[in-house]
Amino acid sequence: MFRYRLLLEYEGTAYLGWQRQPHGPTIQSLIEDALERVLGGNRVSVTASGRTDSGVHALGQVVSFVSPVERSARSLCLGVNTLLPPDISCRVAAPVDLDFHPIQTAVGKHYRYRVLDRNVRAPLRRTQVLHVHEPVELERVCQAAEQLLGTHDFTTFRAQGCASRSAVKTVTRIDVHRVGDEVHFDVEGTGFLRHMVRAIVGTLLQVSTGRFEPTEIATMLAARDRSKAGKTAPAHGLTLVRVHYPDAWPHPV
Amino acid sequence: MFRYRLLLEYEGTAYLGWQRQPHGPTIQSLIEDALERVLGGNRVSVTASGRTDSGVHALGQVVSFVSPVERSARSLCLGVNTLLPPDISCRVAAPVDLDFHPIQTAVGKHYRYRVLDRNVRAPLRRTQVLHVHEPVELERVCQAAEQLLGTHDFTTFRAQGCASRSAVKTVTRIDVHRVGDEVHFDVEGTGFLRHMVRAIVGTLLQVSTGRFEPTEIATMLAARDRSKAGKTAPAHGLTLVRVHYPDAWPHPV
Repeated sequence: MFRYRLLLEYEGTAYLGWQRQPHGPTIQSLIEDALERVLGGNRVSVTASGRTDSGVHALGQVVSFVSPVERSARSLCLGVNTLLPPDISCRVAAPVDLDFHPIQTAVGKHYRYRVLDRNVRAPLRRTQVLHVHEPVELERVCQAAEQLLGTHDFTTFRAQGCASRSAVKTVTRIDVHRVGDEVHFDVEGTGFLRHMVRAIVGTLLQVSTGRFEPTEIATMLAARDRSKAGKTAPAHGLTLVRVHYPDAWPHPV
Repeated sequence: MFRYRLLLEYEGTAYLGWQRQPHGPTIQSLIEDALERVLGGNRVSVTASGRTDSGVHALGQVVSFVSPVERSARSLCLGVNTLLPPDISCRVAAPVDLDFHPIQTAVGKHYRYRVLDRNVRAPLRRTQVLHVHEPVELERVCQAAEQLLGTHDFTTFRAQGCASRSAVKTVTRIDVHRVGDEVHFDVEGTGFLRHMVRAIVGTLLQVSTGRFEPTEIATMLAARDRSKAGKTAPAHGLTLVRVHYPDAWPHPV
């Protein structure tokens, strides 16, 4: 048996998310279909570092599978790229130890949420950036965001249906800053609950508009109650930028 | 009568270009349809600073029309944006002198052509960046590009069906440089022939790959023969960034 990992980039717009679904196209199903052909008819099950929701993008999703047949890294990568649609690509393929696991081996993840705060929408970025009409009040948002740093029970920012065993997660970075005419929310942590980044960003945007005060975030967290936080920001502003692993991994992003 | 100008941003992917066509959607037809409703049923004819081809994008297309009814700049802009699809938007609307003409009044235009030169394609940029597999040889390309600066007869880079009265145009800037993992071709000039920027970029990319020598560009130009130049680069890498006018114009890009 041979284990491989792939670094994937995709635009999530056209898909029902990562995970295989009976009623529509998903990234997982397209990757597994492509691999079946590259692996000479052998059907494999592909596991991702996390299940991105419908509409969420990835610059550096890491996935892995075990194959009964050996392939060179180059032929795997070129092979699946020939078979995948233009909105999904494999950036790098590599053989990896059999005990590698894309979720359990991961030590952290980096998500970016992009917001455009100007009066009119941006057609060329419409699938990847959330457009809001009011300027983001960066000082308020940063003051609020700081309180999320560190290890907390994030139940307040956890969506229903979350499969995580524990709601205790560590946020190692939450950096809100302007990049050109956009505001980027860069969030890194050891693990994330379902819709956690989107619930954080949605709540911080409501701190910006004055619905919440920056100091309320700590109280929200302590309540361990989803109803205390703000809205979940839409999926399309979110991109999984990178998954961190302890060993060296040729990450070209 | 009242004349207005609009600053438009659009993704050209889904359209047969700017100009109204009988057999498919164009930017012009959607703008004119939206304006008809905003102007209380008055049909107007909208003129652009230039006709972008199918697949070509705009960050700052300038268009103008004469209306028999007066509207505030704000209601024009908000009105058409409500009616336009998400891949087209009006960034700014403003009243303008009746003798303004988006083509004749223009003193220059800025186009950008984006190339990604890495081994695998980029799904999140696929509609706006040309992907090439070989690294762009920047030194060769810049040496070649320099020869296009200034006033020349650009017949060699002119497509069939070009309606321009004269092939003599002035290129004021041709700047090829790396931006992250992309190579950008920024081309500015007083006027452009049909497919001129794309023919220039396509030829410069063939200088990069060794098909042409950098010094051949001057000879190509002097030949005034389209068959002497290289390929026309695909439309989707090209964006009309800005149109320059002599008077002040609130240009937020």
